[in-house]
Amino acid sequence: MAPTPTPADKFTFGLWTVGYNGADPFGGPTRAPLDVVHVAEKLAELGAYGLTLHDDDLFAFGSSDADRRKQIDRLIQAKADTGIQVPMITTNLFSAPVFKDGGFTSNDRAVRRFALRKVLRNLDLAAELGAHTFVMWGGREGTEYDSAKNVGAAIERYREAVNILTQYVTDKGYGIKFAIEPKPNEPRGDILLPTLGHAMAFIETLEHPELVGLNPEVGHEQMAGLNFTAGIAQALEAGKLFHIDLNGQRGIKYDQDLVFGHGDLHNAFSLVDLLENGGPNGGSAYDGPRHFDYKPSRTEDETGVWESAKANMRTYLLLKERAAAFRADPEVQEALAAARVAELSQPTLGEGETIDELLADQSAYEGFDSGAYFNGKGFGFVRLQQLATEHLMGAR
Amino acid sequence: MAPTPTPADKFTFGLWTVGYNGADPFGGPTRAPLDVVHVAEKLAELGAYGLTLHDDDLFAFGSSDADRRKQIDRLIQAKADTGIQVPMITTNLFSAPVFKDGGFTSNDRAVRRFALRKVLRNLDLAAELGAHTFVMWGGREGTEYDSAKNVGAAIERYREAVNILTQYVTDKGYGIKFAIEPKPNEPRGDILLPTLGHAMAFIETLEHPELVGLNPEVGHEQMAGLNFTAGIAQALEAGKLFHIDLNGQRGIKYDQDLVFGHGDLHNAFSLVDLLENGGPNGGSAYDGPRHFDYKPSRTEDETGVWESAKANMRTYLLLKERAAAFRADPEVQEALAAARVAELSQPTLGEGETIDELLADQSAYEGFDSGAYFNGKGFGFVRLQQLATEHLMGAR
Amino acid sequence: MAPTPTPADKFTFGLWTVGYNGADPFGGPTRAPLDVVHVAEKLAELGAYGLTLHDDDLFAFGSSDADRRKQIDRLIQAKADTGIQVPMITTNLFSAPVFKDGGFTSNDRAVRRFALRKVLRNLDLAAELGAHTFVMWGGREGTEYDSAKNVGAAIERYREAVNILTQYVTDKGYGIKFAIEPKPNEPRGDILLPTLGHAMAFIETLEHPELVGLNPEVGHEQMAGLNFTAGIAQALEAGKLFHIDLNGQRGIKYDQDLVFGHGDLHNAFSLVDLLENGGPNGGSAYDGPRHFDYKPSRTEDETGVWESAKANMRTYLLLKERAAAFRADPEVQEALAAARVAELSQPTLGEGETIDELLADQSAYEGFDSGAYFNGKGFGFVRLQQLATEHLMGAR
Amino acid sequence: MAPTPTPADKFTFGLWTVGYNGADPFGGPTRAPLDVVHVAEKLAELGAYGLTLHDDDLFAFGSSDADRRKQIDRLIQAKADTGIQVPMITTNLFSAPVFKDGGFTSNDRAVRRFALRKVLRNLDLAAELGAHTFVMWGGREGTEYDSAKNVGAAIERYREAVNILTQYVTDKGYGIKFAIEPKPNEPRGDILLPTLGHAMAFIETLEHPELVGLNPEVGHEQMAGLNFTAGIAQALEAGKLFHIDLNGQRGIKYDQDLVFGHGDLHNAFSLVDLLENGGPNGGSAYDGPRHFDYKPSRTEDETGVWESAKANMRTYLLLKERAAAFRADPEVQEALAAARVAELSQPTLGEGETIDELLADQSAYEGFDSGAYFNGKGFGFVRLQQLATEHLMGAR
Repeated sequence: MAPTPTPADKFTFGLWTVGYNGADPFGGPTRAPLDVVHVAEKLAELGAYGLTLHDDDLFAFGSSDADRRKQIDRLIQAKADTGIQVPMITTNLFSAPVFKDGGFTSNDRAVRRFALRKVLRNLDLAAELGAHTFVMWGGREGTEYDSAKNVGAAIERYREAVNILTQYVTDKGYGIKFAIEPKPNEPRGDILLPTLGHAMAFIETLEHPELVGLNPEVGHEQMAGLNFTAGIAQALEAGKLFHIDLNGQRGIKYDQDLVFGHGDLHNAFSLVDLLENGGPNGGSAYDGPRHFDYKPSRTEDETGVWESAKANMRTYLLLKERAAAFRADPEVQEALAAARVAELSQPTLGEGETIDELLADQSAYEGFDSGAYFNGKGFGFVRLQQLATEHLMGAR
Repeated sequence: MAPTPTPADKFTFGLWTVGYNGADPFGGPTRAPLDVVHVAEKLAELGAYGLTLHDDDLFAFGSSDADRRKQIDRLIQAKADTGIQVPMITTNLFSAPVFKDGGFTSNDRAVRRFALRKVLRNLDLAAELGAHTFVMWGGREGTEYDSAKNVGAAIERYREAVNILTQYVTDKGYGIKFAIEPKPNEPRGDILLPTLGHAMAFIETLEHPELVGLNPEVGHEQMAGLNFTAGIAQALEAGKLFHIDLNGQRGIKYDQDLVFGHGDLHNAFSLVDLLENGGPNGGSAYDGPRHFDYKPSRTEDETGVWESAKANMRTYLLLKERAAAFRADPEVQEALAAARVAELSQPTLGEGETIDELLADQSAYEGFDSGAYFNGKGFGFVRLQQLATEHLMGAR
Repeated sequence: MAPTPTPADKFTFGLWTVGYNGADPFGGPTRAPLDVVHVAEKLAELGAYGLTLHDDDLFAFGSSDADRRKQIDRLIQAKADTGIQVPMITTNLFSAPVFKDGGFTSNDRAVRRFALRKVLRNLDLAAELGAHTFVMWGGREGTEYDSAKNVGAAIERYREAVNILTQYVTDKGYGIKFAIEPKPNEPRGDILLPTLGHAMAFIETLEHPELVGLNPEVGHEQMAGLNFTAGIAQALEAGKLFHIDLNGQRGIKYDQDLVFGHGDLHNAFSLVDLLENGGPNGGSAYDGPRHFDYKPSRTEDETGVWESAKANMRTYLLLKERAAAFRADPEVQEALAAARVAELSQPTLGEGETIDELLADQSAYEGFDSGAYFNGKGFGFVRLQQLATEHLMGAR
Repeated sequence: MAPTPTPADKFTFGLWTVGYNGADPFGGPTRAPLDVVHVAEKLAELGAYGLTLHDDDLFAFGSSDADRRKQIDRLIQAKADTGIQVPMITTNLFSAPVFKDGGFTSNDRAVRRFALRKVLRNLDLAAELGAHTFVMWGGREGTEYDSAKNVGAAIERYREAVNILTQYVTDKGYGIKFAIEPKPNEPRGDILLPTLGHAMAFIETLEHPELVGLNPEVGHEQMAGLNFTAGIAQALEAGKLFHIDLNGQRGIKYDQDLVFGHGDLHNAFSLVDLLENGGPNGGSAYDGPRHFDYKPSRTEDETGVWESAKANMRTYLLLKERAAAFRADPEVQEALAAARVAELSQPTLGEGETIDELLADQSAYEGFDSGAYFNGKGFGFVRLQQLATEHLMGAR
């Protein structure tokens, strides 16, 4: 049985996730909106740690200052009443018609200036709400047509925008870091910074790279056919996993935003194993929120919404248990050793060995029996994967 | 713990699967060939039911009659010695240079005649070996370039070929049925009859459709992003699941031929559930061989080959256990009822109801409250999927 | 220069295409709705032949009888005023909440009865408007979760529904045929009858298969990575191309509905070549409407809407010109002969040749030099494709 | 008509490309090997600039020193005789069984040492042959199973290896730069550094990032569904396009290595436009070799091999012509202006404008009419794409 989630598990949910009304490209809403206070209460009741939001989730685009303030105050009161935290917020630069060609990289300079102002204002709100992470999903930053967008210029403008934002939080002393959320496509034909790799490369060109990291999403990388766990490993190695979006996706197709674990279950298992046991000493490799960015299926009513929220947390905790058992199993440890998995952490050169010494080592090349790898020296990877599969299935 | 496989489980393996030498587009063999007698002995030892083969797996393309006969006799002896059956055989029309534009649908008529002769000869062998199913994978029947292949004509030629083959087995009284194995691409850019749907449509146009069915392969349908279980359900409903190829594939990419269950585990679970429990009265929906068409990873030596063979069978049996527990769980039964899954088997019209009576039923339209489906009448599908996930993980 | 479209070109547009308001999963409308009379006038002005529609495009779901009639009368008047035809109509069984689990195959029987009634009523409208083709896109007939849908039962219900509809038009003497539009996924995780192959196989199981064919859409097949031209060739060979949806898609991702030719241009070229020149005597292989089912990009205002409508027609006409020049080029004819493309239309057996005669033909097997295909007997396919490419580019 | 290629066009071909023997996962060779001298002569005759190679293309893995030297000398003589250059070479760390789990990142440390020695030796050869670019395609650096590979450690080892190599060329004064070639999968289930983004991010962590750039390949990025032109634009903006591999790929599937332009033609057009006209002043954005890394289809004999080599160059030159005409067309210039494409190069802040000044600019936010973007302010992107399409088709 999966343990019951508690705030110590640091599970968080976007307000737009449980609040999703069911609209999609071929149909209108199937559910009424959920009020933010109600959401905070329910999440607290289910054992979640926090709630996250776009500005436009809390108050409609174009709200008056008074309406905006009223909603913010209601949220602040709900935080106090429920204990629910708001560790991350983000700005919607994709829903309103003004952003139809993007925000930071719209071809229209006036739109870019408007977008910057919208985000700067939302950074003040982030600080007020105590959020430490500011996510940027540039879903409209892209194009359908190669001739319509100068991608080099778009990257310059994106850089200009992020540099302004990092300068602003530095000047204000906000203690906020930024996390870029990559996505390959949808709603644009091709989106700027389509994978976590592209985003990491971009970050290195910023004025304050130390303030900017990633918010990778399971389904977004899988929409490009990429291995999410492998990508997270690269991000962790580079110190850039600032936040994470957990959900489920069944292959290369539209963005499904299923419950975590309802997509590629093997990859969900290795991901939880990496997050929980992949640290330098075998401990946690990531200590931030486990943030679910999913959509309760359009077929469900509110009962199904909360069932789906619980499902995300239960599956995560089950996978955490399975991963712990996998790591503890002596047969697994033996198979890992046979597969030489840990040997990869050993440097290829000896300690202090120079290139000249390597070149002089006859055993490394002239005397090395490369032929032994034909019909021998198998790695035992399939057996290891079968052990992982059986642990995932609770069969050991 | 997974139970140990026995011949009653009807697990079969292609000779080319455990015998795969590890060659791929970017590297040569990493393993020596396995002798057919050795394979038969090992499979028997592991609890398998049978062995399947292409002609060219047993004796090299272009073998003399004597060499061919010698190998056939060795296999017949091995059958007798080990009890291993040969329930299916198939012809290789894709490896030799002569088939570079296909066999039955090569633009070159002389090649087509050669291909027919090769297959007719192999049908005699199938009869001699006691095989009841003859698989046809037309991997080279296709093209890279639309202008290079008249697809309509290719379908005519494919039909001509299959009609000849069904006539031949009828004339000979062989008791052999044919199973077409679809694949969308690789090694050709696009392959004729790319999915099980296209193949079923083709079969209906044959002279003896009752003699021709499908041999769908997990990975082949998944290479088109299609749901394998759903496809198998359509094939079963049409009475066309004559054989099945089980393996693993991780999304839309090259043909991986991983161990069954090492790909999309959710879909493997629902597949086994369908095969084992999806029959009309909840029993088995398919009673043919459970045939593994996979490749032991190139990283493995022979030890790994047999570990991988075992892994296929163990995972199948584990999934069978999980599916039985899923079906038996009262909470699952309650969730299935709430999701109205069985209600779909009830005809939409009442017994004997006419169209006029439907049109006269005010409750069906004029008085039907379609608005109740907004913010209500949720189907509970996510909860059901979570129950399936937890059973798959052995967590209930 | 591309010639100007005329009604003789039989170009038709869905009312929902030029009328698309720009809403997508991540943003609301960017354009106001277009009135049906205005659309008819504009399409006539641009040289289109016709307009097609869902019931809910013309009058909102749940309209009163009076509102419904008013809109129908306005369309009838617009037809008379502009000469615009309505050769096809279809029913929306996917947008309203009631259809959240589908129409004909909803798990909820009451929904299925409501869906049938909605379609039957719309068949009366089709007859009134003079439409001869009734398209069925079952976009919500599917599931996200294998356990939530009995696919075999869903196929039975779909069959029951289509049998009722064909009976109805037969009883009424409507002269309407049905065209099923397949799609692999979106908005459901997996959709029933995901490709044109699956749909053709299904059609053969109906009571009136002669009344039911296909309405394949470029992008839908390409979302499964399938070659659209090859699929159309199979549909034509089976006599099942009843209607066609032209648009553009850039690979396996969400449904883009771009302008025809703005996706896979090579495949668009071979498609037009097939439709225009692929008939038995080199003439037209399909004489129905060339129907554009696309979405003007969300970035556009109404000026861009009509530019995009023109672009569809211009590209089709340009490709038709290019295909004609390709077929007429002596070098192409020589290359086609060298590639033996026409030889595939020649039966593999000689006229009246029996299987025994084939078996007795030593030249076909025993004396056949299969070795000559190594390092020789190249097909020249790449040269042919280059000729096609250069014709497509207007470079010859 | 396409102009005839000359060495000034800098077209280069891999020895393994025209020399490809036609073997694939489902069939053996269809062509005999081509001798390097013959290849050099033919390429020179066709107007190519150069030839590139892996060590193992020139002399078989495990060759004696004498055999190795003999082949090197034959190549050097052919260079002198034909004028063919060798501007790039690379090392094969993927074909031999010893590399079955990779080279630089094999779990087996002895293999890693052997791989390093093999590459160091090949760097000496690169210097001897006058190559200035050393490509690294790590096709075997990856895994099929998440548990079998510590990706973080793999990145560390890859970094260690590249740091050693850059140190070596620096110490030796070789004047060689390195270009990493990313690929998402095949032959491994998932490959390390799967996209150009991941590789660029990795490069920034090296000791000598200035010596290491990219060698992106059209088909490799497209195998992940990514827009190649957009990726190249990001690489150019970062100064990291050190080399480029041109070929054709038809969507997300196995690595096709078709002729350039025989895949996604729109993207090929925008790529050539970017390379040729995307520089800061509208000139060339990249001045290195236009390297074709493709495979002549297995259906071809040697005549077809050279036809395919010519096709690559002809298509490139045709696209270059089309791109020049596109840029020169006044209607295109007007459409680009209407689409505000150049406006994206204008910084979002005014010259010297501070954040405080932006915040004080009422016109940017408080007075900005975001509502004007509903039903107005269309970008005209579709018209622009249609102009591009018509130029690509030679129709303007």
